[in-house]
Amino acid sequence: MIIVLKPEATRQHADELLARIGALGLTPLHMPGTERVVLGALGDERQLEQLQLDAHPMVESVQRVLAPYKLVSREMHPHDTVVSVGGVPVGGVRVVVMAGPCAVESAEQMRETADAIRAARGAVLRGGAFKPRTSPYAFQGLGRRGLEILREAADATGLPAVTEVLDAADVPLVAEFADALQVGARNMQNFRLLQAVGAAGKPVLLKRGMGAKVEDLLMAAEYVLAAGNPDVILCERGIQTFETATRNTLDLNAVPVIKQRSHLPVIVDPSHGTGRRELVIPMAKAAVACGADGLLVEVHRDPAAALSDGRQSLYPAQFAALMNELEPFAAAAGRTLR
Amino acid sequence: MIIVLKPEATRQHADELLARIGALGLTPLHMPGTERVVLGALGDERQLEQLQLDAHPMVESVQRVLAPYKLVSREMHPHDTVVSVGGVPVGGVRVVVMAGPCAVESAEQMRETADAIRAARGAVLRGGAFKPRTSPYAFQGLGRRGLEILREAADATGLPAVTEVLDAADVPLVAEFADALQVGARNMQNFRLLQAVGAAGKPVLLKRGMGAKVEDLLMAAEYVLAAGNPDVILCERGIQTFETATRNTLDLNAVPVIKQRSHLPVIVDPSHGTGRRELVIPMAKAAVACGADGLLVEVHRDPAAALSDGRQSLYPAQFAALMNELEPFAAAAGRTLR
Amino acid sequence: MIIVLKPEATRQHADELLARIGALGLTPLHMPGTERVVLGALGDERQLEQLQLDAHPMVESVQRVLAPYKLVSREMHPHDTVVSVGGVPVGGVRVVVMAGPCAVESAEQMRETADAIRAARGAVLRGGAFKPRTSPYAFQGLGRRGLEILREAADATGLPAVTEVLDAADVPLVAEFADALQVGARNMQNFRLLQAVGAAGKPVLLKRGMGAKVEDLLMAAEYVLAAGNPDVILCERGIQTFETATRNTLDLNAVPVIKQRSHLPVIVDPSHGTGRRELVIPMAKAAVACGADGLLVEVHRDPAAALSDGRQSLYPAQFAALMNELEPFAAAAGRTLR
Amino acid sequence: MIIVLKPEATRQHADELLARIGALGLTPLHMPGTERVVLGALGDERQLEQLQLDAHPMVESVQRVLAPYKLVSREMHPHDTVVSVGGVPVGGVRVVVMAGPCAVESAEQMRETADAIRAARGAVLRGGAFKPRTSPYAFQGLGRRGLEILREAADATGLPAVTEVLDAADVPLVAEFADALQVGARNMQNFRLLQAVGAAGKPVLLKRGMGAKVEDLLMAAEYVLAAGNPDVILCERGIQTFETATRNTLDLNAVPVIKQRSHLPVIVDPSHGTGRRELVIPMAKAAVACGADGLLVEVHRDPAAALSDGRQSLYPAQFAALMNELEPFAAAAGRTLR
Repeated sequence: MIIVLKPEATRQHADELLARIGALGLTPLHMPGTERVVLGALGDERQLEQLQLDAHPMVESVQRVLAPYKLVSREMHPHDTVVSVGGVPVGGVRVVVMAGPCAVESAEQMRETADAIRAARGAVLRGGAFKPRTSPYAFQGLGRRGLEILREAADATGLPAVTEVLDAADVPLVAEFADALQVGARNMQNFRLLQAVGAAGKPVLLKRGMGAKVEDLLMAAEYVLAAGNPDVILCERGIQTFETATRNTLDLNAVPVIKQRSHLPVIVDPSHGTGRRELVIPMAKAAVACGADGLLVEVHRDPAAALSDGRQSLYPAQFAALMNELEPFAAAAGRTLR
Repeated sequence: MIIVLKPEATRQHADELLARIGALGLTPLHMPGTERVVLGALGDERQLEQLQLDAHPMVESVQRVLAPYKLVSREMHPHDTVVSVGGVPVGGVRVVVMAGPCAVESAEQMRETADAIRAARGAVLRGGAFKPRTSPYAFQGLGRRGLEILREAADATGLPAVTEVLDAADVPLVAEFADALQVGARNMQNFRLLQAVGAAGKPVLLKRGMGAKVEDLLMAAEYVLAAGNPDVILCERGIQTFETATRNTLDLNAVPVIKQRSHLPVIVDPSHGTGRRELVIPMAKAAVACGADGLLVEVHRDPAAALSDGRQSLYPAQFAALMNELEPFAAAAGRTLR
Repeated sequence: MIIVLKPEATRQHADELLARIGALGLTPLHMPGTERVVLGALGDERQLEQLQLDAHPMVESVQRVLAPYKLVSREMHPHDTVVSVGGVPVGGVRVVVMAGPCAVESAEQMRETADAIRAARGAVLRGGAFKPRTSPYAFQGLGRRGLEILREAADATGLPAVTEVLDAADVPLVAEFADALQVGARNMQNFRLLQAVGAAGKPVLLKRGMGAKVEDLLMAAEYVLAAGNPDVILCERGIQTFETATRNTLDLNAVPVIKQRSHLPVIVDPSHGTGRRELVIPMAKAAVACGADGLLVEVHRDPAAALSDGRQSLYPAQFAALMNELEPFAAAAGRTLR
Repeated sequence: MIIVLKPEATRQHADELLARIGALGLTPLHMPGTERVVLGALGDERQLEQLQLDAHPMVESVQRVLAPYKLVSREMHPHDTVVSVGGVPVGGVRVVVMAGPCAVESAEQMRETADAIRAARGAVLRGGAFKPRTSPYAFQGLGRRGLEILREAADATGLPAVTEVLDAADVPLVAEFADALQVGARNMQNFRLLQAVGAAGKPVLLKRGMGAKVEDLLMAAEYVLAAGNPDVILCERGIQTFETATRNTLDLNAVPVIKQRSHLPVIVDPSHGTGRRELVIPMAKAAVACGADGLLVEVHRDPAAALSDGRQSLYPAQFAALMNELEPFAAAAGRTLR
């Protein structure tokens, strides 16, 4: 950690701070310059956080040397982690396409969509039983009945199922039905939920918040790993920017950035990431090209009649086209698709 | 609602959509232009949301005419709402200053800080017992013991207490000790928590998320009101932007925007909003000048020793100075401060 | 254009506005709803802009039905435009890779880099003679001498040359030496410069501003086309967001969005777009995968000794690797690379 | 400057970098830690920029200790600069209100508006003769004739005049008629224009770009000062964010941030900053409360008939109200208004 003192700081202030650093068992460094005094502290920066050195009135700024996350970092764990979702490995050679409707609406809708996904050789089934909706007047999901329907469709097609959990109290219920637990963008910093899924014994699909930096996402994953669950899949799904041509700005840069910093697998959700059906296929290809380990795609048997997010859902025929068009890009990336 | 069709849409597509609008009991309108066909639908737009018209393959865009929130809107409820927090009215003539440490750390720290706040005639005491921390290795708060300490300090000084609740399951516990329940920025779209505080029978202090538009904040408040709780105070606390000179960008424009759209009181948190102690006083003045009903300010008896967010906490003497300097601005706004 | 009136607007206000719309020769529409009166105006929206209807005190909001650009729009011109840069077609089947150093530093540096680019079969040479630098103390480019060096390197290798022009007064000079004129991100809304390059008789490479929406970029291109120059290549190069892991956020979504809205070719600059050398190759692949017509890549014979932007420049060997690794992605996209 | 090396860097790499630092005459520092080696370089960081240390393949990150601007910094020049605009001091005890129409449209419009501004005791007249418009089809200003009209109105009312200059070539013409030269947000990084106004011998009003950090604004001002012109007034006018309730997000935090870092006066433009007439008065008050030295406000005798930006222009009566309502806030800030 590098600590820059204010111009008015005296030698006494520097000594006081150096003593506090030393008292933690870390190595303090004193670097007096012509315009500023700079202090250094070498060692585990997690301990230094405790000192809250930036709160000191004579400290101008504090700059970390090391990343604030540990368990998720590639430095701690150089090899790629492969997470098994109901037997499907995520993070290996296969680009894993997870698909399904935004919301589970009925057994027929789910079964029909699942059949289409399986026919196109999608790898994992998705579908929301508990829906986080911006409006209290919008469809909130079928709850437990939705979980049952999802499980039936998954079992019938032999696809593992992933679904969102909204609240720590629901974790046991959702874990009973799902092969992986999704934590949505709006809950990325719901730390109670992160701790609960960290203890649930099921893989976690953690989506980046719309206002979260990559570092914030990695810190959220650190919560899950710190709670004892190493099976975390990260998901880029678009961030808030000033651009209005897309609902969010899908930030594909996050894929190689995360790959460099972390050993965890990363997938991309081009449906929420762009909010527009016609952008899903090009951005899915781009995601695979820059190294994504998988995709999360919304598919509905009849998007124009969907109860939520129909605007961004693919028709089954479009999903089949996506899978076909994606194939050469997966191959170009040295990977397989199905 | 205004529905713009794609250039390739036929009369048949238009008729199909008009029929769906009419079937909901709304008035459909047909406006054929030279370059685009535009449809209109007049009536309760909440019903129209169900139709998901933007998911239709022949629809280019859908534009709402009315706001998506109802209960929080000024149109529904033209007069300012005044929320009582333990007897202190928020939204009336008095600018209500809520102050205290980021986290409750000990009975002594809390009592000393509370005394300083009371001496400077702050109106409400704040202090976190459950802390949402970016890092799992950071201090997470004292939990129940923190609530007890906060209550004791509040009772001793006669100040009402507000504190954050992180999870729906904690609402009854926190409601037992606090005069108002704070929902933090990271939980602004934790809809389960919004529903739980909506049923708690205590006023709610709802902070704007770092990636949330004003409209998103109003929709989050709509959840609380729709759950039966009319006592919501909104809080602007900074949004995510590209600017790095401040930790967040405090968006004071939100204050007059909310005042125009909603009847709910609005307060401003210049401590989190800027993340820097030396900006708190000028931005607090600006908040009062543009119409804020109150402030939420971090004060710590010794910020350099604080367990969290010391960088943005005022020293007690600075808080006293803030209250003195704020006085003429409150008067200029036709309000009182104490 | 759709005009939503305020709740307090009377029939008289509506009639007044309808009369102003009719007076322009457009078709006025009156749609009285239960909560709001909505007016419509059908016809050339460029004329409607003149009315400044949103300035009327009884107008709540104005929503356009049609895009504000005409000449650049795909509706006006459905087929892809192919722009010839010194004989190299941009926008056709070949993915055109433009490469070179950020700044022209010396004849040797330029010649050596150009040879490396040609050897790897890059298509166009780039290099800055006039550099827009954030700091007045940074290297500002060699000016006219830089243009001469660039031309010599281009002629020696048989590659066309593209270089930036900073000011309307420099357009004739730069046009004398370059095969295409680059307008940089910081000048995207320097309308005098846009008009000048519109009259220069050379193709224009127009980079998106860091704070510009896609629509703003298309409007800037409209300036060039309206000045008589149809040969515009658009370039995505990263926008300002809250994310700090990359210098800018390369917004690849812009590629398919522009392709849908405009007939102009689009290229991507992953060097400036990410600001980090190690992200250039993955994002270049992604750009090709989502439909980019070309790339703009910084290459320097010795990035660690570069006078500007060395952090994001590829070593010649990395550029050769990029070209090799890109090949299968170009093929997957149904295109050729060299 | 602090240089963090990559984990794989050897002692040899460190020595090589330390030698380069020493060769510049700066003091090199070596700080070997357990997980990273950190180097320091103490001295004039402008020299260090030349080294482009972040381009070195073994350098992980480079962190500046000192600000990159010098002439504009408060460290170099601790006392507030006061800039005289035609005899009106900006940066002193008086809050200077500059007002006028977005564009000069006619002698009558200008004269009538100027009279209203003078009657309400505005201090400076503004009006655009060269207009930077997003659309090439929008009104582009009256040019030289507009300058003449502005000058006449200024002379008739005794108010100094400020107007925008779009291009370096126009600087002599505009300087002939105006008391201060405005550089607009879209030209904030038009470095040729900055150099030209730096040599013009007239005060410069420099507006912050919509995608510019405060640091970028200060660097742009540094260009003007470095060209020999010390008379720069900075202007906050809104930045690009995801919020759509306002046209831009007026970032008032910039006011106290700039005041801490720089000695230059700062004014605020709430008209462009919010884009909505009804937000101008509250945000103007807030600007004065947080320390702005002045305001730039759009006023039009008939906004509904304005040729540009009518949506955000005040009616003359509203301007008079603004001046009256502002008075107690100026007094609360220890300043005068007229």
